[in-house]
Amino acid sequence: MQKAIGIFDSGIGGLTVLSELIRVLPEENTIYLGDTARVPYGIRSPETVTRYSFENTRFLLSQEIKMLVVACNTASAISLDAVKSEFPLPVIGVLEPGARAAAAATRSGRIGVIGTEATIASGAYERAIRAMLPRAEVTSIACPLFVPLAEEGWVDNDVAELVAGRYLSPFRGTGIDTLVLGCTHYPLLKPVISKIMGSDITLIDSATETAAEVRSVLEKLNWKKAGSDEGVVRRYFVTDTPARFEKVGKLFLGEGSLAAEQVKVGGA
Amino acid sequence: MQKAIGIFDSGIGGLTVLSELIRVLPEENTIYLGDTARVPYGIRSPETVTRYSFENTRFLLSQEIKMLVVACNTASAISLDAVKSEFPLPVIGVLEPGARAAAAATRSGRIGVIGTEATIASGAYERAIRAMLPRAEVTSIACPLFVPLAEEGWVDNDVAELVAGRYLSPFRGTGIDTLVLGCTHYPLLKPVISKIMGSDITLIDSATETAAEVRSVLEKLNWKKAGSDEGVVRRYFVTDTPARFEKVGKLFLGEGSLAAEQVKVGGA
Repeated sequence: MQKAIGIFDSGIGGLTVLSELIRVLPEENTIYLGDTARVPYGIRSPETVTRYSFENTRFLLSQEIKMLVVACNTASAISLDAVKSEFPLPVIGVLEPGARAAAAATRSGRIGVIGTEATIASGAYERAIRAMLPRAEVTSIACPLFVPLAEEGWVDNDVAELVAGRYLSPFRGTGIDTLVLGCTHYPLLKPVISKIMGSDITLIDSATETAAEVRSVLEKLNWKKAGSDEGVVRRYFVTDTPARFEKVGKLFLGEGSLAAEQVKVGGA
Repeated sequence: MQKAIGIFDSGIGGLTVLSELIRVLPEENTIYLGDTARVPYGIRSPETVTRYSFENTRFLLSQEIKMLVVACNTASAISLDAVKSEFPLPVIGVLEPGARAAAAATRSGRIGVIGTEATIASGAYERAIRAMLPRAEVTSIACPLFVPLAEEGWVDNDVAELVAGRYLSPFRGTGIDTLVLGCTHYPLLKPVISKIMGSDITLIDSATETAAEVRSVLEKLNWKKAGSDEGVVRRYFVTDTPARFEKVGKLFLGEGSLAAEQVKVGGA
């Protein structure tokens, strides 16, 4: 088979990125690794997240990939530079594409960012946005319960609305016109976030932006999959047993088989 | 120092058990291991939970312990028998003491159990309760969002009430008179659970029952700490960096220093 696009996430959330990749590059082979034995990354320290990222990358490289997508905002925020300098293949995180889209979308220069504790604590979105738009004023809020809510499938009920209302209320009065969904789980909560923020706030979904960036890099390098009669290969690996990934993953990827193989990655 | 009581949990929740241990056995040395680099266990497979339990036990044994407390319901439900047969020291889980207390408390024979996905899926509480009270009718419900709610400190607000109301509503009409809080995080949510279930339902808190069991075993073996002038030793180890443990742990243990040392345990 021709070399694939390798994608890793701490678990299931990165499937929102894979879903977008499949939409814009349906012909490309993809290999997805969900580190389900060590999910979630958003509550862990930078040192630990970086070690996990390296181990995941080494595994994907053993599977013949031409490009790496770090489809986890926490891993992108904390370890992307380290991964890039250790592994000299094209590496795309989910953070820069989202930051770039936000900088392009805002009119007021006031941008909100929501993400996990680790992502927000890293300050990486703020730095990335201000590197592109120095006048930007960025307000960041950690929303730790959004990931378990999304994994529970409680994305449009009264609990989701109440939790979102609490987390997002500090944005009132900040004058933001753009909000970055800085975690791959959050697109599932888009309807409720949109309801609370109001329809005049632009929501930036990193998954969409990242897939566009992957396409653009493949085109620039002339690395898109060569025409051939071979079918498209989609492989899924997980570090815990596959049952929960296959079940919950359906919320993220929609239709299609998520049959996954369990592998040992680092100490997972 | 005299040999300690070793306690492990997937992370922070086991501190509710330690807190009770300190209350009933204030003079005993304690060594607590929180596997914070791999928490939570409640969403992982039985094989993975068992491997993590073995690795945690080996670490605690290296620290000179006389007895092991598996202060995590998921690890107790899934791996206690395996741990006991691998490591022949006194091992106490949090499940049997809770089951025994429930069997003793119920009048109607109808008992409810709440816990993580993995604990409920294991059926271990139902088996333990029916072994003690064959006529018992056990209704079990997984409450995956309770752990993240407790860790966020949202234990007595409108979100906690709404989530608890949703999870617990299937108990209506079952006639249960006793409810087992089958996860070490859940005692933090006791007030809201009690409010929803009503004051005529007896809540069984495994932490209290487990500490009583530890004391009873130490007395039976005549292994209580010998009188001496040495102070009490409390040590805390974690597998991720200590900052979050020390901060969130205060919710669980109340006052006192939680200064923890990071260690490598298995692949954590």
